[in-house]
Amino acid sequence: MDSKNYTEVLIDGRIYTLGGAEDESYLQRVASYINEKHSQLKKRDGFLKQSGDYQSVMVELNIADDYFKAKEEVDKLKEQKNELEKEAYSLRHELVTTQMKLEKALRQQEEAEKKKG
Amino acid sequence: MDSKNYTEVLIDGRIYTLGGAEDESYLQRVASYINEKHSQLKKRDGFLKQSGDYQSVMVELNIADDYFKAKEEVDKLKEQKNELEKEAYSLRHELVTTQMKLEKALRQQEEAEKKKG
Repeated sequence: MDSKNYTEVLIDGRIYTLGGAEDESYLQRVASYINEKHSQLKKRDGFLKQSGDYQSVMVELNIADDYFKAKEEVDKLKEQKNELEKEAYSLRHELVTTQMKLEKALRQQEEAEKKKG
Repeated sequence: MDSKNYTEVLIDGRIYTLGGAEDESYLQRVASYINEKHSQLKKRDGFLKQSGDYQSVMVELNIADDYFKAKEEVDKLKEQKNELEKEAYSLRHELVTTQMKLEKALRQQEEAEKKKG
């Protein structure tokens, strides 16, 4: 079975046919994000007077910057998740210890009641 | 004070001078990542026979795909962090309740001892 999808996307005014495993709605979201980058940069003073190579590289740098920032957030979140996992582990441990102490105290209370009665 | 740094980066065989708040080592890492994308794509059959526009858009799509994947990971990690925070909250609550019950049981035990003595 051919799992490749073919999707036409419009990027910077041109149509491209993309083949891949990704579904159409994903590719359209990616294309729309790239178009947003192009239009943001085109609004910058003098941008359109620069060479095509320069313009492309600026778009690439802008997208790569978003990627690096997202990766930084991934690292930060992984660290926070790790800390929370450690905290939950130690809380679970403390809870079990306290529950065992409570059970022991209640058992002793019960035995003392029996003796009295 | 001018907080802008000017850094020269080499991308796809050309030198670009970038001005911005980012430090040089960051920009060099971003440039090196972009160069890696260019060389990966150039290895694909027929890629270099395509137009410059096509080549640029393929690089942009590849970087944007990394960005979207990282963003998905950010969303997933935020959800997991949220779940862990809820779990830690409820464990802390249960621990406090159990500690109070234990204290009460120990106090009662102590009082019973006093009465006996």
